[in-house]
Order: sequence, then C-alpha cells, then structure tokens
Amino acid sequence: MDNIKTAEILSVGYELLLGDIVNTDAAFLCRRLASLGISVSRQHTVGDDSADLVDALHSALRRAPLVIMSGGLGPTFDDLTKETVAAAFCRKMYLDEPSLEKITRYFAARGTEMTQNNVKQAMMPEGAVIFENDYGTAPALAIEGNIDGVEGERIVIMLPGPPRELEPIFNERVMPYLAAKTGEIMVSSNINILGMGESAVEEILRELMQSSKNPTIAPYCGHGEVRLRVTARAENESKARGLCDEMIAKIKQTAVAPYIYDIDSPSIEDTAVRRLRERGMTVGCAESCTGGLVAKRLTDIAGCSDVFMGGCVTYSNESKIKLLGVDPDTLAKYGAVSEPVAAQMARGVRERLGTDVGISTTGIAGPGGGTPEKPVGTVWIAISTTEGEKTRLLRLSSMRERSYLRTLAANEAIAQIFNIK
Amino acid sequence: MDNIKTAEILSVGYELLLGDIVNTDAAFLCRRLASLGISVSRQHTVGDDSADLVDALHSALRRAPLVIMSGGLGPTFDDLTKETVAAAFCRKMYLDEPSLEKITRYFAARGTEMTQNNVKQAMMPEGAVIFENDYGTAPALAIEGNIDGVEGERIVIMLPGPPRELEPIFNERVMPYLAAKTGEIMVSSNINILGMGESAVEEILRELMQSSKNPTIAPYCGHGEVRLRVTARAENESKARGLCDEMIAKIKQTAVAPYIYDIDSPSIEDTAVRRLRERGMTVGCAESCTGGLVAKRLTDIAGCSDVFMGGCVTYSNESKIKLLGVDPDTLAKYGAVSEPVAAQMARGVRERLGTDVGISTTGIAGPGGGTPEKPVGTVWIAISTTEGEKTRLLRLSSMRERSYLRTLAANEAIAQIFNIK
Repeated sequence: MDNIKTAEILSVGYELLLGDIVNTDAAFLCRRLASLGISVSRQHTVGDDSADLVDALHSALRRAPLVIMSGGLGPTFDDLTKETVAAAFCRKMYLDEPSLEKITRYFAARGTEMTQNNVKQAMMPEGAVIFENDYGTAPALAIEGNIDGVEGERIVIMLPGPPRELEPIFNERVMPYLAAKTGEIMVSSNINILGMGESAVEEILRELMQSSKNPTIAPYCGHGEVRLRVTARAENESKARGLCDEMIAKIKQTAVAPYIYDIDSPSIEDTAVRRLRERGMTVGCAESCTGGLVAKRLTDIAGCSDVFMGGCVTYSNESKIKLLGVDPDTLAKYGAVSEPVAAQMARGVRERLGTDVGISTTGIAGPGGGTPEKPVGTVWIAISTTEGEKTRLLRLSSMRERSYLRTLAANEAIAQIFNIK
Repeated sequence: MDNIKTAEILSVGYELLLGDIVNTDAAFLCRRLASLGISVSRQHTVGDDSADLVDALHSALRRAPLVIMSGGLGPTFDDLTKETVAAAFCRKMYLDEPSLEKITRYFAARGTEMTQNNVKQAMMPEGAVIFENDYGTAPALAIEGNIDGVEGERIVIMLPGPPRELEPIFNERVMPYLAAKTGEIMVSSNINILGMGESAVEEILRELMQSSKNPTIAPYCGHGEVRLRVTARAENESKARGLCDEMIAKIKQTAVAPYIYDIDSPSIEDTAVRRLRERGMTVGCAESCTGGLVAKRLTDIAGCSDVFMGGCVTYSNESKIKLLGVDPDTLAKYGAVSEPVAAQMARGVRERLGTDVGISTTGIAGPGGGTPEKPVGTVWIAISTTEGEKTRLLRLSSMRERSYLRTLAANEAIAQIFNIK
C-alpha cells in the first residue's frame, strides 16, 4: 500500500443531485490529492440511497486503491456512508466513547442542546482510523483492508460534507495520514494570465502543450482570467519543482508573456494587495456598477488593512456627488457612465480617504439600462495617483450576464494597480 | 421515449479532476432537470481520457435513458465528447456548414480571428439535433437512438462546459426539447429559514420528513441559512403546486415558523430588496468587517437601484470618521468594534445619503485581530431609521473561517431590513 497513485471521489447526498448545493468538496479534494502526487481518475455523486451507494462504492474500489467519500455522516436516518463501507469491509459498528465525548463537549461549548440523533455520529466501524472533527459533530474516519472480489488492499476515507468541516479536517488530519502512504510527488504551478483568451493562449502554446508530458500544461479559465497549470512529477519535491520552473521560464519566452501578471497567485486581488504592500502604498475604491465587489474582493485578503483603507459604493448620482464630490454638471453633461465621471470618482475617493491610489468603476452591468450609445457591458474604469488620473473604456460583451460582467469589470479595475510605478 | 424519469450527468475534463474549477454545471443541470420532473440518479466526472469516457458513458447509458454531458466540446485535441458518443451510437462525423458559419460569425462579431482548431467545433455526428450557441463557439447537440447491448432508446445531450454558455443554451434550447419528452411534473418550493440550525429544524420536523413521501421534505444549509425543499410530483403543475402549498402551510404550524423569513427567495438580499420596494424605502450601508459584501450582495440584484443608493466601506478608523462622521472620541473610548460605533456608522450613512434606512457592520472577521474581550467572530450590526438606531451583537464562532464569518455577518446585517415597519 506504499505507492498510491490514483483515487476516486465518491460524494453522497440527494442535496447534490437536486442541485441545492454545488460540490466544492470534490474540487478541493482533487487539488489536495494532486499535491500528494495522487491523481483523481473519477468523481461520482450518488444520492442517499443504499443500493446506489453500494454499487458506486464497489465499482470505485475495483478500479482505485483509494476512495475518498464526502457526506452521509450526518445524524439523520438517511446518512448511510459508515454503515455501507462497514458492510463492504465486513466490519461491525460500535459506539466510540471518545467520539461521543467529543460531540457532547462540542454542543456544551456552544450552549446548544445535543439531540438524540447526534449519538449516531459516534458509531464507528470496527478497526476504523478516526480523525477528530474540531469544526462540527461528525468525526472523519478511514478503513483499510481487503474486500471480497477485489485484489489488493483498499482504503476508504469518509469525510463530513460541509466544506467548513471537510477542508480543515482533510488538511490537518487526513493529509499527514495519506502523505505517509504515497510515493512520487506532484508539484503544480499556475501561470496567471489576464487580457488574452483561452483559445489564443492555446494557439500559441499548442505544440508545447502536446509535446510536453512531464510537466504537463493545461489551460483553463475562470473568473475572466486564464491560468496555465504546469504539473510535474518526480521522486522528490525539489526535482518536481525544478521541472516546473524550467517550463514556466520557457513559456515566458512566448507571445503569452506580456499577459502574465503573476505566478501562483490565488487571485488578481491577492497580487494587487501584495504589490501595494511592496510599494508601501494605500488604496481606496469608488464603485458604481461593481457595487462593492472591488472592496469585497480586496478585503477577502486577510490582513489587507495595511493597504486598503476603504471605499464608496455610489450607486446613485446623488451618492456620487455627496460621497465623492463628483461635479453635478459633469454628471449632467456626460452621464454617470463616462470617462470624466470615472476619473472624478477615483480622484474623489483618493482625496477623501487620503490614500496614495484611488480606483473606480462606472458602467452598465445589465440586464437593463443599456442604450445604443452605451450598451450593457460599457464600463469606464479609472485610477488616480498623485500624478493624475488614467482612464480606460471596457467594452464587455452585452451578451454576458450581470454577475460575469461585474466580475470582469472588477478584474480590470483591480488590475490597474499592477501598473503603479 | 415519452416518459423520461431519470437521468445521469457525465462531466468531462481534467480541469475538474485537478480541482482547478468547481463543477457548478452539475448543480445547475440537476435543478433544471428536477423542474422537468427528471431526477438525476448519479453524476460522474471523468478526465479527457478516451477509455474512461467510453466506460463511464456506457455504464451510464445502461442505467439511465438520458445522459447529459458537459465539457469536451472545445476546439482542442483532447476534446473527445462528440467523437466518443458518435462511436457509441455508430454514427459518422460530418462538417456541419450552418455551425461553421455561426462560429465564423461569432469571431467576426468580436473582431477576433478564428483559429483553425475552431473548425473542429463544427464537426457533428450524423443525425444529431444541434442546439445553436449564442454565447460561445461550441454548439450543443443531442443524439437519440439505440446502442449495442442496451435495451430501449437512449438520449445523450452534449453541452459546452463553461457555465456562461451551458446555462443559457440549456434554458433556451434544451429545456423545450426535453419538456416535449417527459411525462410527470415535479414542483419544488424552498422554505427560507434564518436563525435556526439544520439539526434543530430536523429534530422538530423529523416525523413529518420521514412519513411524507409526496411531497418530500429535505433540509439543507448553505451560506448560513437553512432551506427546506418541499418537492411534489403530479400529472400536472397545478396539482403538484397544490401538494407543495399544503405542506408549506403544515410546516408553518410548527416551532420552525418564527424563523421562516420567506418562501422561494433566491437569497436574503433578494427578500430585503423586495421588502424595501414594497415599502417605498431606500437604504444605504456602512461596512467595516464585511468590507463591501453587503453592498455587493444588494447590488447583485438587477434593478436594485430604486432602493439601494450606495454605501461606504470604512475599513480604517480614519475612513469611519471621514466618510461616516463617526465621533473620534467614541472610537477611542470603545474601539471600532463596539455598539456605539455600529450605531453611528448606520446613522452616518443614512444621513449622508439621505436614505430611509442605514445598516452597518463592524467586527473581527479574522484570522488575526482577535482579543480575549473581542475574539474573532465578534460583530456588531446596526440599523438606523428616522425612529433611531437598533443594534445587535453577533458572537460568531471563532473557529469559522474568514469568508464564512463575513457571510454570516452580512446575512444578519441584511436581514435587519426584514423587521422594518
């Protein structure tokens, strides 16, 4: 069992199949497993149905030595994960006293009453490895062993479904457990690209992508940016890292280079906050069409308070005048979605907050509000520093939906920070 | 083929298995299929690997009469979906001229050059039903027919992976196609609950949930609120709707009732914007720890500009003084995270913007910044109207992560609007 290369993920719960919640757990698990050199070959979701669960579990165990399950550990009658896995490995269930105590303490610490059904969460298959849950009531667990009709040892890891429980338990408890069991190391880097589309990036890099097997190069897009994921495998981390870095250097020699804004940045705002910090500069923002999204994204970054001072969401004309000092005549003459208003907003917030930099957005996010001269997707952005204001017109596609247009506008507004000298 | 009851979803792409993107398509498709009376029995994800794709497709087709696939329709060499499905149904591929013309027009309209690999996107299996794509270059398609070794007719629908393409194509083109093929109708309602946890809701409703088969009742939680999904099936919509409404009335007689804030609201902010509009009132917000999230969520609602005027994100003490007129002495005496500061922020934004209502947040979102007296998770919220200010202390769990704490704080801040007389 000392060289696990592949795993399958089995997500459990009707709430997933009804579409009530999005399966963020699967993506999280894939990323974490990749960092251990374990590639996920398939992911499945089944409902809280015993026959489907048994079928999916057995077929996954036939293909992969490791199956990671999420969900179905709850206190309710339709939570079947532990019982199903116990049956597959021919294990009995027992009441695990330490788990019960922990659950009891969890409720006591919150001053809420423990309900009788929570006792079920302390029932465990015999021989299970139990991972304590500091973030909820269902402990995670693993079972190792052999099952009928399948050659070789198998491991099934069972995790609670809610991401705010699954993620820390996996990071803190399951990662060390798995790291001890794997061989080769996989290392990935993401090249962050803004301003060039996925097809264009691929056209430039197609030959390199097709010919290179280690590292592999995969483009993907999301939130209006393209990322190139470079993934290398080797027997140790420094070798894998070396392969990755070589490939990144090679890509930086291509026509994609001018659009690379960072390497391994979690987000545009993360890079922006770091650049401001490096320069010892502060920023404020003035938002119309993005309605708080720029500020929200900058303050998503923990510890941003050394560079982000505040901002104004000025959705109405009146608020632009009152909060930012935009000139009423300019508003009347050019309209709220215009170059001079964007510039005055950026300057206004910078001066009022006394920051080094002010950034602004004003545009038409739709679906209503478009005109032939200013269709949905028309957005002016501006940046103000002591050297004056710079503006830029974004003509985003009017066929995109509101939330996507707002994301693109916020991307470009935040990315203005990259160019500060 | 006139009574499709179940479907499976097969998502394709290594980017999903690497965890680079979250599979929001699957959740979307599940919801839309449910509205047609089609329940999704399983969801699978495989990589861009021919053998895995063939295996997963065939096993899905053995179980379900309808398989919806997403991804793998792109222009690149590793996009295999159409070819794999064509092989399963023994169909040849041909160049579909109308699709090619449409793709050519798509690029022309954007002023970008069409790359040679985009021609691949116009290749279609013989006999395919083609759904035009107004949002990207890959048309969606369906194949109906029989396959070797499987009894009964089968339908495979292939959709482009990016949600901003998949969602509108499915709504506009695929829904009408499928509606013509289904029998029974499924109707769902969500009961929106805020302020009571999932376990407590279930403890109260357990017997009802276990005994009721039509409608079914399923609790789920997300974004800090609990929803009860009531789902009824019947031969027509009005009958199914009637069954749903009866069950909702029954649940409104239980101890859960005081925590129900709406029925079928997409979000807390959606309800808040509607309540303000019904009362003809306007709002402004003043945010510290939520950093723009309250404004962002209110402006997520298209057409909110009749009730939402603007807001201030006052992350620093200085910005609270400058933008909102918070008293420096109060800040010095009580600290930024305090009842009087929350009250002054709410009143400040209301007075400055001339709105009927002002709401505010000030707290410690973490992970840093906590003290023994004010641990991470301490949040003061306030609402200001012409009748004065009301404040509330939230003691959120310090073990939750930053983004979740910010979501909970924004939830409660926005929900203050529900109580306006």
